[in-house]
Amino acid sequence: MLGHLSTELRPTLMRESREDAEHAIGADADSHPTADPTDAGSELQALMEALEAGKLKRVGKLLHRMHPAKVAGLLEALPPAERSQAWSMVETERAGRVLSFLHDEISTALAQELDLDDLIAAVHHLELDDLVDLIQALPAELGRHLVQATAGARREQLESMLAYPEDSAGGLMNADAIAVRADVKAGTVLRYLRLLDTLPPQTDTLMVVDRKGLYRGALRLSVLVTADLDTRVNAMMQADLAGIPVDTSALEVARQFQDLDLMSAPVVDTEGRLIGRITVDDVVDLIREDSDRAVMQMAGLDDEADMFAPVLVSSRRRAVWLGINLLTAFLAAWVIGRFQGTLEQIVALAVLMPIVASMGGIAGSQTLTLVIRGLALKQVQKGNVRVLLNREVGIAALNGILWALVVAVLAVAWFGDWGIGGVIAAAILLNLLCAALAGLAIPLVLERMGIDPALAGSVILTTVTDVVGFFAFLGLATVLLL
Amino acid sequence: MLGHLSTELRPTLMRESREDAEHAIGADADSHPTADPTDAGSELQALMEALEAGKLKRVGKLLHRMHPAKVAGLLEALPPAERSQAWSMVETERAGRVLSFLHDEISTALAQELDLDDLIAAVHHLELDDLVDLIQALPAELGRHLVQATAGARREQLESMLAYPEDSAGGLMNADAIAVRADVKAGTVLRYLRLLDTLPPQTDTLMVVDRKGLYRGALRLSVLVTADLDTRVNAMMQADLAGIPVDTSALEVARQFQDLDLMSAPVVDTEGRLIGRITVDDVVDLIREDSDRAVMQMAGLDDEADMFAPVLVSSRRRAVWLGINLLTAFLAAWVIGRFQGTLEQIVALAVLMPIVASMGGIAGSQTLTLVIRGLALKQVQKGNVRVLLNREVGIAALNGILWALVVAVLAVAWFGDWGIGGVIAAAILLNLLCAALAGLAIPLVLERMGIDPALAGSVILTTVTDVVGFFAFLGLATVLLL
Repeated sequence: MLGHLSTELRPTLMRESREDAEHAIGADADSHPTADPTDAGSELQALMEALEAGKLKRVGKLLHRMHPAKVAGLLEALPPAERSQAWSMVETERAGRVLSFLHDEISTALAQELDLDDLIAAVHHLELDDLVDLIQALPAELGRHLVQATAGARREQLESMLAYPEDSAGGLMNADAIAVRADVKAGTVLRYLRLLDTLPPQTDTLMVVDRKGLYRGALRLSVLVTADLDTRVNAMMQADLAGIPVDTSALEVARQFQDLDLMSAPVVDTEGRLIGRITVDDVVDLIREDSDRAVMQMAGLDDEADMFAPVLVSSRRRAVWLGINLLTAFLAAWVIGRFQGTLEQIVALAVLMPIVASMGGIAGSQTLTLVIRGLALKQVQKGNVRVLLNREVGIAALNGILWALVVAVLAVAWFGDWGIGGVIAAAILLNLLCAALAGLAIPLVLERMGIDPALAGSVILTTVTDVVGFFAFLGLATVLLL
Repeated sequence: MLGHLSTELRPTLMRESREDAEHAIGADADSHPTADPTDAGSELQALMEALEAGKLKRVGKLLHRMHPAKVAGLLEALPPAERSQAWSMVETERAGRVLSFLHDEISTALAQELDLDDLIAAVHHLELDDLVDLIQALPAELGRHLVQATAGARREQLESMLAYPEDSAGGLMNADAIAVRADVKAGTVLRYLRLLDTLPPQTDTLMVVDRKGLYRGALRLSVLVTADLDTRVNAMMQADLAGIPVDTSALEVARQFQDLDLMSAPVVDTEGRLIGRITVDDVVDLIREDSDRAVMQMAGLDDEADMFAPVLVSSRRRAVWLGINLLTAFLAAWVIGRFQGTLEQIVALAVLMPIVASMGGIAGSQTLTLVIRGLALKQVQKGNVRVLLNREVGIAALNGILWALVVAVLAVAWFGDWGIGGVIAAAILLNLLCAALAGLAIPLVLERMGIDPALAGSVILTTVTDVVGFFAFLGLATVLLL
């Protein structure tokens, strides 16, 4: 009994506990569970050694002991050939769960390595939302086979869930909410629950509906179990927990879970009828995946791709990003090319020009990152863009002046030419101011155009700061120094 | 009643429901709640207009209607002066919750705007873990005042929680777990729970302990309510849900919650005694903050900083990052400076050299990002580094050859010089290969040194690809073309 209990209650429970103890079966059992320090490194090592030695039975034993999430993690860390071998040693009844923890590309590949019958058996006990995710990742035909292999109510629910976009409340929900009426008593609800064998996983809340199936509120189990048996549901339920409309974006769902500290939430259709619930475990996955995607996207990578995909496949994927960046590099080179005459006469300019471009790029990416986050949190809006603009220009001016002076002093010390110092100072200040404007404007414009600023913002910004940086530096030098 | 119910059970509940309905009080009430489409934009607009017009009462009314999380979001979106005004209109009893949703810098500033008495009143009803976060963000002295203002068991718990590092299981936990004994019956537990007024927020699970307070297992409420009243706790509890040692890193805790789909989990001390529990809402916040921090860090920004901090303060913070990057830019410039003679003779090299550096930087950042994620997921390890190395070098070779040819053709077309084409092709291939090696080696070395690769990796990588790119291109040109 921990601190939360008032001291009056302790004796009550202690006594009851002692009474019950007389009939206890092995109450003070031997071992108490604690988390074992997971040494993932040695597990991978052991697995690879067993695979190399061809001891597949040992592989099976090793995997058998682990949680499906850990099996998935290890499979992803294995090169393709070893991965297939290890995968063949995962029991069919656990394979479905393992698939649900894998990134799309890998789960698709491994699902296709199974016979169709085995695959159907493997996913038979999957929660519907996990099955929906898997089907959406698989080739269309294989997905259809899996749908056809389900039957009855599960088939119906599966088909209706597949109809919703993956990144909407409908795509996140499970149709397994337990619903009760507002006018029944706590005791009745409890008796009813005892008639059920088990509740669906992650059930912390019952949903309250009326005769027509309209959602009325949520009844937490933690409230139900502390209530008097005579209390009616409508006196205990949270009537202020709004139903999430089925077409709400996944992003908005995640925000609501985070803001309201929800563990599960009801999903309603356009008429307000309860059609399912979203549980926090799926929201946790969603947030993690979004964060993963954001970081990978910035390098032009696909977060669902296999780290060990064939070299040719990976090369082709990455080539696209390199090609896009080559375009911006050539644009910068073209600007420099306009000033070949100047560079021929003052070669020091060629030495210093990357500094101007680089400082602009760094400063601009700071503004860009800040604004992209502000947009995501809905904290950058019409009402405060002007204030933000003033601040960013102010910061750019201060840092511009500071670093312009520093670089100018270093340049003069290096090349002994006051003219070059003046020109580079002016160019840096100018580029930092442009970088602030671009860092603010680019995400706003992209968002209005419906393009994710996190995806394209950084390339466009670099193009701007490179072009402006080279043009300002070499242009000013041409005008002032020649 | 939704799909989950077997058809046999439906009539039972329907009947009970109807019986109870005879005594119902307004069961089929008027409105059913649905989420209102939150138009955050117009809310900020309305708030700013009211503030500008000096209508503080209206500000208070607007804020009063909103969830504390939304109030926090709007406060963060307001410039400092308007923010203080709006903050003064937040009711003291809601101010604590609002503080807990704010980023550190802002919550500290706003907490200090309150009189100490008001602040103490505001945080009086905060959950302990939120209070701990707040105290850790506040100046030490103010934090001490808040600790001293609590009393009794709350004070004791608070002090013990403050003793744990913020980013450990101890820092995440609340000491409000409800514990029961393994040998009592379900009916007894239920009777005991009814003696409590309410359970702590986010209670989905009771913890099972033995006489000595050692953790034995977890009893889900959803299992308790479906069990026969005579079933003993040890027959219903999950004995396989391990207690999380109090010194486990927050990152590891988040991973366990994600992998095991947990809603709450027990925390144990070194002897295995139950000392608290972690709830999923804190894990959600943690994951979100980690993701936020990762993205902000890459631009050298602090995720807890105020978007509207004074210009001078923000300038100083960002200047550090610009300064670090200036060092790497000067290093690159120094390399170019070694080849002034070459540049004077072939000015085309100055035009093309940024392309070589830029392609290396992009390709390297792809490998770097992949490896950093692999390390975070523990999927890059001794066992598979060699495989990864081979793959990355293979990809670099393929993309190196592809883009070397493309750039060479363009360079020859532009400058009509086969020598320059050959040199730039060789330099790009070389730089991409070095970029792959650096992208793999840098995070591995940083991690071994205990430095977060996500923080420093990208700057170091850019330095390498710039230096190698310029050196290879200009060096080869000097040797081959002069």
